[in-house]
Amino acid sequence: MEKEKAAYIAGFLDGDGCIMLQLIYRKDYLLGYQIRASIVFYQKQQNRYYLEWLKQKLGDGYIRNRGDGMSEYTIVGIQSVRRILEMLKPYLVLKRKHVKVALYVLEKMPGTGRKMRPEVLLKLAKYVDKFATLNYSKKRTNTSKEVTRFLLSHKLLRSRRD
Amino acid sequence: MEKEKAAYIAGFLDGDGCIMLQLIYRKDYLLGYQIRASIVFYQKQQNRYYLEWLKQKLGDGYIRNRGDGMSEYTIVGIQSVRRILEMLKPYLVLKRKHVKVALYVLEKMPGTGRKMRPEVLLKLAKYVDKFATLNYSKKRTNTSKEVTRFLLSHKLLRSRRD
Repeated sequence: MEKEKAAYIAGFLDGDGCIMLQLIYRKDYLLGYQIRASIVFYQKQQNRYYLEWLKQKLGDGYIRNRGDGMSEYTIVGIQSVRRILEMLKPYLVLKRKHVKVALYVLEKMPGTGRKMRPEVLLKLAKYVDKFATLNYSKKRTNTSKEVTRFLLSHKLLRSRRD
Repeated sequence: MEKEKAAYIAGFLDGDGCIMLQLIYRKDYLLGYQIRASIVFYQKQQNRYYLEWLKQKLGDGYIRNRGDGMSEYTIVGIQSVRRILEMLKPYLVLKRKHVKVALYVLEKMPGTGRKMRPEVLLKLAKYVDKFATLNYSKKRTNTSKEVTRFLLSHKLLRSRRD
């Protein structure tokens, strides 16, 4: 992508985009929780063409019309999010810290088919907590506390008192 | 300004900035109304540093803290707004139409100390109406209708029935 396009998209992400790191509970996961990374852009449905344009430039993700008149463009998955954040990083101003923390977490995630160790998940979950404070997220239900509780109760982690 | 910086700011303006054209009633104005052009950026007060950074890049305007926890960076005035829009224009995507209409109006405005003709004001006021539909402005009180009314009542414009 040309530098000016990447700089433009970085500006748009700083202004109206959202980078998310979330802990998702998965009952079929051995460790109970998955770390989900995503980048989201929103527009009124009449500006959906703009999200299509963005998607064409970024080359990943999907667009859906929500029930409230908005369209939402979501890029999800470690590889895609990492690639895009690396590309926009040199130009970001407001979300520079977000990207630093997000990339740190994404780089520590084991590749496809490789197992995550419980200690690594817990460490990364704490970074996800830290990330949430940058995003001013208020309604979080899954934090590193829940991950700790799950890992302890499933004897995947040793309690400090053991 | 370097191209990437201009592209970044264009992206930020597309995402979270606001370009405005307004008709302002001035009781000391011969024609009753002034056309006011402005560019506005907002951030939470804790991110005021970002607006200071933008201001340093754009070289005009003023920043104030509002009562609601937000900071507001406003660039006002024909020359400044025109200069900045010309600089960002090549990179804008979402607000391209806004800028086209705004620059058309700004270019037609007479320079400092030169008088505006009533017919010109009315023509430009209609473009301001058009611009407002692009911005989805709902609470407009001053439209080209009010300008027409003022000009007719002050005999600055001939009614079609004359």
